[in-house]
Amino acid sequence: MEPFKSHVERLLRVLTNRGLQAALIYSSPNIFYFTGTDAPSVSIILETGEVLSVASRLEYLRAVEERAVGDVYAFSSQEEVAEYERVVERDLYGAVKKLLGSIPPEKVGIAGASLDVKKKLAEKLGAEPLDITREVLNLRRQKDSAEISRIRDSIRVAELAMRKALDTLDKGVREVDIAVEVLSLILKSGAQPSFDPIIAFGDHAAQPHAKPTQRELREGDVVKIDLGARVNGYCSDMTRSIIFGKPSQKQERVFRAVIKALEKSIESLQAGKAAKEVYSAAFKALKEEGLHIYFNHGLGHGVGIEIHEEPYLNSENESPLLVGDVVTIEPGVYMAGYLGVRIEDMLYVREDGAELLTYFPRDYLVI
Amino acid sequence: MEPFKSHVERLLRVLTNRGLQAALIYSSPNIFYFTGTDAPSVSIILETGEVLSVASRLEYLRAVEERAVGDVYAFSSQEEVAEYERVVERDLYGAVKKLLGSIPPEKVGIAGASLDVKKKLAEKLGAEPLDITREVLNLRRQKDSAEISRIRDSIRVAELAMRKALDTLDKGVREVDIAVEVLSLILKSGAQPSFDPIIAFGDHAAQPHAKPTQRELREGDVVKIDLGARVNGYCSDMTRSIIFGKPSQKQERVFRAVIKALEKSIESLQAGKAAKEVYSAAFKALKEEGLHIYFNHGLGHGVGIEIHEEPYLNSENESPLLVGDVVTIEPGVYMAGYLGVRIEDMLYVREDGAELLTYFPRDYLVI
Repeated sequence: MEPFKSHVERLLRVLTNRGLQAALIYSSPNIFYFTGTDAPSVSIILETGEVLSVASRLEYLRAVEERAVGDVYAFSSQEEVAEYERVVERDLYGAVKKLLGSIPPEKVGIAGASLDVKKKLAEKLGAEPLDITREVLNLRRQKDSAEISRIRDSIRVAELAMRKALDTLDKGVREVDIAVEVLSLILKSGAQPSFDPIIAFGDHAAQPHAKPTQRELREGDVVKIDLGARVNGYCSDMTRSIIFGKPSQKQERVFRAVIKALEKSIESLQAGKAAKEVYSAAFKALKEEGLHIYFNHGLGHGVGIEIHEEPYLNSENESPLLVGDVVTIEPGVYMAGYLGVRIEDMLYVREDGAELLTYFPRDYLVI
Repeated sequence: MEPFKSHVERLLRVLTNRGLQAALIYSSPNIFYFTGTDAPSVSIILETGEVLSVASRLEYLRAVEERAVGDVYAFSSQEEVAEYERVVERDLYGAVKKLLGSIPPEKVGIAGASLDVKKKLAEKLGAEPLDITREVLNLRRQKDSAEISRIRDSIRVAELAMRKALDTLDKGVREVDIAVEVLSLILKSGAQPSFDPIIAFGDHAAQPHAKPTQRELREGDVVKIDLGARVNGYCSDMTRSIIFGKPSQKQERVFRAVIKALEKSIESLQAGKAAKEVYSAAFKALKEEGLHIYFNHGLGHGVGIEIHEEPYLNSENESPLLVGDVVTIEPGVYMAGYLGVRIEDMLYVREDGAELLTYFPRDYLVI
């Protein structure tokens, strides 16, 4: 089932509430949310439910072939174009003006546009449209069943890739070798990586966003693997850290603390709670072990069409979690010159509590 | 040899010319250009030649370990941090203000910052710094010998990946299988992909930016492969298109036209010439064959720290090519439902003419 038509219907209710006749949708993830393709430069959604997307000639054919909703037009300053290209205007701003027709700018909403784009549009249309970015981001946070199904599919692919990565660990194997196994499994499954996989051994894992190198795996190394897939436009994200060989007492202490931080924050996750409170649950658990000074990033983030999207679970975000949010929880402990340990699961915030979407075990020993 | 120190020296001359005492460098590629790492959020370059970078705690250790030039500081609102983190302030804007010390905002230049960042800085510093983005982008265009050497290395990796891709072509092989071979070769060489490789068979190649799918290779398909590597921070970009099997007359005509367009535009490439004139050389060659209506994108772009950077070779850019520019030339013909053919080489604009940096043959038949 495709979620896009129902997203357009949800936007139409926003238009009605704000007294608008049309919305200009900018930024790839917003455009994908309503149309099923991220190839257009802008999508225009009319109060009638019509969806008119405008793409550069470069992206026109991909937009036409990928779109689940609406029509696609192109813009071009060339006088002659291919017979199948529906060119409406010389430039993007002209195309927007033309497709809006007689709708006045004060009856137009706009989401996801930069300050620069809004300024140019104001010049072209005579006034700046009403910003409805907040409303669109809130719609995107409330994942529906069709979206959850896609996210579940992308988590399953990520879990297969994680299994493959762990099975490939061996003395002398390089970080890049594991990265290749991960990418191979994801691509051959018909998915895409949702970000460049992070594979880091030993003290290299102390960089939270380490990039895979030629470093070889040694006995006693901690191994940190952070990966994700994108299936039908929706992302997954997961991290596992393991000890390759016999763990030291200190390594075990760090792992147990990170797992406890994960468990405590998952327990505290529920709709209506401030994002910063969920962060605090993990922070406190690490503080009890004296490891909080090595937890140097946010606790988690929303995941959907984007790998990082609202809500952000950090020490400062006071806004409440919403029913429909899909988030990661990823506490970590990083010690320069020694190790980095992060464990990350995905959760779905429901009326009746948070559902764990990631099934992969959290065991930290490679047998 | 590392190019970064000499880049700082070039910037100091800009500061002197503009009467400035410091520059705030924003955006990852700009920061990399002066420091050798893209992990900081901002780098401050003082007229004394000192370089002070500021990173989030998340990226602090990577910044410290990767940097070739200068010192790294962190910002954090946490009261307690790891013993090795040099936290100077609670937030990024505070850190900038503190590190600038007594230098007044009217003596500060700024490059690569968004309107939003500039506005917040103006509030923090009392006035908006002087925008020197244009100067920094012009420095980045004038590649020096250390940069050309890195670009040559990344082209060699891309060529090895292209050879591997072509050697893997076989009836029934899927686009994703080729993508995996390409990524494997690049990563195992110690390089990174400079973008997601484009591998497209048959009519799928009619999308200029096709994403690899499960589609299987069939006799008579055109195969389009666009890939690149990043070595020591510098990118390469190349495209080859081939015919798998016995070519039809129409296919041969398209290939010959694209190769002619490539040759004609390379001939016309020289310092001082307007970018749009180089585009025109390719466009005219395609027009002679009646294929110009299927050439639906720009002719090429600069390549360096970014895979797409200045100068852009399109129908509208009137600015002249500079000595030191490294550009791609990539004419293409795309026919919906039938094929896509693009051939792309990299060139270095020198005093005495343009040097072809890509050595890979342009043959379009797989034997």
